Amino acid sequence: MSVEQPQPWTLRRVAEAVDGDLVGDGEVVVTRVSPVGEADDASIGFLADRRYLAGAQESGAAAFLVTPEFADQVDPDRPRVVVADGHRALQGLLVAMYPPQPPVPGVHPTAVVGDEVELGEGIEVGPYAVLEAGSVVGARSRIGAHVVVGRGATVGEDCVLHPHAVLYPGAELGDRVVLHAGARVGADGFGYAWAAGGHQKVPQVGQCVIGDDVEIGANSTIDRGSIGKTVIGRGTKIDNLVQIAHNVRLGPHCAVAACVGIAGSTRLGTGVVMGGQAGIIGHLRVGDGAKIAAKAAVFRDVPAGETVSGAPSRPHREFLRSRAAVERLPKLVARVKALEARLAALEEA
Amino acid sequence: MSVEQPQPWTLRRVAEAVDGDLVGDGEVVVTRVSPVGEADDASIGFLADRRYLAGAQESGAAAFLVTPEFADQVDPDRPRVVVADGHRALQGLLVAMYPPQPPVPGVHPTAVVGDEVELGEGIEVGPYAVLEAGSVVGARSRIGAHVVVGRGATVGEDCVLHPHAVLYPGAELGDRVVLHAGARVGADGFGYAWAAGGHQKVPQVGQCVIGDDVEIGANSTIDRGSIGKTVIGRGTKIDNLVQIAHNVRLGPHCAVAACVGIAGSTRLGTGVVMGGQAGIIGHLRVGDGAKIAAKAAVFRDVPAGETVSGAPSRPHREFLRSRAAVERLPKLVARVKALEARLAALEEA
Amino acid sequence: MSVEQPQPWTLRRVAEAVDGDLVGDGEVVVTRVSPVGEADDASIGFLADRRYLAGAQESGAAAFLVTPEFADQVDPDRPRVVVADGHRALQGLLVAMYPPQPPVPGVHPTAVVGDEVELGEGIEVGPYAVLEAGSVVGARSRIGAHVVVGRGATVGEDCVLHPHAVLYPGAELGDRVVLHAGARVGADGFGYAWAAGGHQKVPQVGQCVIGDDVEIGANSTIDRGSIGKTVIGRGTKIDNLVQIAHNVRLGPHCAVAACVGIAGSTRLGTGVVMGGQAGIIGHLRVGDGAKIAAKAAVFRDVPAGETVSGAPSRPHREFLRSRAAVERLPKLVARVKALEARLAALEEA
Repeated sequence: MSVEQPQPWTLRRVAEAVDGDLVGDGEVVVTRVSPVGEADDASIGFLADRRYLAGAQESGAAAFLVTPEFADQVDPDRPRVVVADGHRALQGLLVAMYPPQPPVPGVHPTAVVGDEVELGEGIEVGPYAVLEAGSVVGARSRIGAHVVVGRGATVGEDCVLHPHAVLYPGAELGDRVVLHAGARVGADGFGYAWAAGGHQKVPQVGQCVIGDDVEIGANSTIDRGSIGKTVIGRGTKIDNLVQIAHNVRLGPHCAVAACVGIAGSTRLGTGVVMGGQAGIIGHLRVGDGAKIAAKAAVFRDVPAGETVSGAPSRPHREFLRSRAAVERLPKLVARVKALEARLAALEEA
Repeated sequence: MSVEQPQPWTLRRVAEAVDGDLVGDGEVVVTRVSPVGEADDASIGFLADRRYLAGAQESGAAAFLVTPEFADQVDPDRPRVVVADGHRALQGLLVAMYPPQPPVPGVHPTAVVGDEVELGEGIEVGPYAVLEAGSVVGARSRIGAHVVVGRGATVGEDCVLHPHAVLYPGAELGDRVVLHAGARVGADGFGYAWAAGGHQKVPQVGQCVIGDDVEIGANSTIDRGSIGKTVIGRGTKIDNLVQIAHNVRLGPHCAVAACVGIAGSTRLGTGVVMGGQAGIIGHLRVGDGAKIAAKAAVFRDVPAGETVSGAPSRPHREFLRSRAAVERLPKLVARVKALEARLAALEEA
Repeated sequence: MSVEQPQPWTLRRVAEAVDGDLVGDGEVVVTRVSPVGEADDASIGFLADRRYLAGAQESGAAAFLVTPEFADQVDPDRPRVVVADGHRALQGLLVAMYPPQPPVPGVHPTAVVGDEVELGEGIEVGPYAVLEAGSVVGARSRIGAHVVVGRGATVGEDCVLHPHAVLYPGAELGDRVVLHAGARVGADGFGYAWAAGGHQKVPQVGQCVIGDDVEIGANSTIDRGSIGKTVIGRGTKIDNLVQIAHNVRLGPHCAVAACVGIAGSTRLGTGVVMGGQAGIIGHLRVGDGAKIAAKAAVFRDVPAGETVSGAPSRPHREFLRSRAAVERLPKLVARVKALEARLAALEEA
């Protein structure tokens, strides 16, 4: 088998890739992975969640990738691979079937490369990219179309900067960082002092440091420090349209969902998880492993390991209790009214 | 009258365009439409909302476009066109007075066009646009400056992609789609599995399909499916800074206001309306014609036709009741205190 | 001393620049300003906030810039400059140490300049910028890489447009305006009328006018008027990822934090302050000097000088009262239950 002819994905090969149990014909070939409800006869249909049972029995899939509890929810006559942890198996299979595209080394002739730029080996620089003076791009990194790497900014090795990402001057990316389209790293923080009848800009002269293995979503914005640093810890993942203000520090391995805002100088520990549209005001501390629910408004420090929700946020159990009490309020009002009537009758008597 | 000399907008012509009643001199000429409070003697002043009555009587407008209930709120000596439905009339008049700019066919010499790109007839491609290998642009579509159409992505006919819009590889646009500046279509969804002490990326390999007649606002982000598809139904309109996560499906004719976030795999029916900054968590269903108020946080399925508000959201009438009960809480506390005193007195006796 | 050799920043010079009291050796030289906890021996460490006391005593700073209440919290043997207003002093020092970079006059050979474009003296136009026909750029303005100035749009004098900012056709910027990367000024508002079984676009033909000394953050979006104008008053500062809808008017000297959304036709007075992720629905009035807390949802007019918070927002004191009452609800329920038992006992008797 030559390298030009990729090995077909037989079900046997799938089972090996995900360390799963093969049931049925291992020679069936699939070319893609699909949700069980959208699968056709070239697909292996994926089912690992009760919410997607509907349609599973009528699925057009050639074969299935399922967890044991759903193994009897699909056509018993079609072959399947059964795995204990569906989402980890899916991740492993997708990495195997869709390996990341290697860079196509070279600098597009339209790219503008400034003075004293350092270009690592094997990098790919797309059309209309602008690498300003003194910037550095590490080995094997891919710089997409229209990307701007500002003066003195640095990109580590094996990074992927999708089209239209912008690094402000001096911003620093570690290795294996991924920036999606329109991500802005190192923009000025929002700092003014009132004087002479107007907001006077406080020059934003600090750094913006993005650790190894960080991924930042489309159109997200990470400001540089005012003085001092903004830091995103290694392995932290940030979704689309997220705002990280000046001097914020995120520890390693955080996961920040879309539309989150974190105000200035707030610090998150290791492995903090934030749901979509949550917000944290400035100058707070959020401990390791804390979880902040979607839409929560955090106005106080959050201890390590705590789960908070609501606006203003409080521990999730308190939030549920107080929410339930509010929902029973009309009944409480009726009880008070009844008490008043009974008491009046008694007073009368 | 030659084609170079556009016909002047006499009030008579306005009345015909909007199917309205002309009162007064039909030969008055206007050159633009203005809010009644900002109008000058070249304007037809528009008034269809009680909130903008202030200043109506002193308006500098040459003429008025009004609904019957406001017809006597403007100078009775100036001509007017009276219409039953103000906003529909305004829409019709603006379309007539400001017809969409046709494309100026041609590919700017700086555009980069990859291998095997298909270009339809009469398309306009702006400076520094990048059409990657295998991409397709349908007839009469306008591709703005710096737009990137990724590998194998397709743009239908009569589309308008404003400057800086980006299609990731494989994204698909229907016909008459409008993307505003900085819209990102088909970016990776936010999917990771924890393994080996870190968040491991789940390759995002699904599709992103945008239906006919969809408009997407500036800097909004629509992720591709993880596996399977993200789908925006035909005729749906999306405002600025909106986030649509992987595998979300919006039905036709939805209207999604600015700063909304919709988490993964959630599905909206036909004609759903979402107010600004509203959010929906993942894996939910929102039925046809449901309305979600501004800032609402939706944590449960929403039945067809329901209006929900609040965080967490509930049916709007319940929200109002519980909001009112909360506002009367201090009074309820006082009532309970009074009961306690009276009961103590009675027990004493 | 030649102009090439900038004067070193001795502590004496720092004290003069900020009009502070020098304590200790005035000949110590610093090269940057750092938070006291991140400072090294080339830094002057800044301390003006109780929250950053931790580490102050072990700071590696060569000298300190402190307010009187913290002057004894740092090593007494190292020199310091003591100032009454820490943040104003910091602002002044940073402006002095980091003067804004002057434009490097010239138009990059890759910039595309349309017909009848007016270019002021001393402007700098970066690579791949596109200045469409009839646009105007005032003297000494800096136009970054990939910026698009649409047809007939105008940029005042001494502006800075960071890379990837986009002005839609006809947008107007005053003098000394700063646009950060990805800011979109003058995009279409979100206006449709339902007809013929679909949302029909209301052509957005109004203006977008940005006053002098306005700064707009990265990836923020400011829509043009539908008819009439969207106006941002002079000196107003807008953070990242903010959405300003059509026909909104902000007075002068407002400060709008990140992720805010303001819906159509709402008007803010002078000096209004909005916290992060706050939102205001359409057609409201917010009076001069009002303050809107982070995450607030404003559904009613806000009087001048009022501070509001919560969702829906109300005066901040009411918000605190009602929040406290909700937190005491479980206790109130217990009191009612006790009353019921006591009353039953009494009725029994």
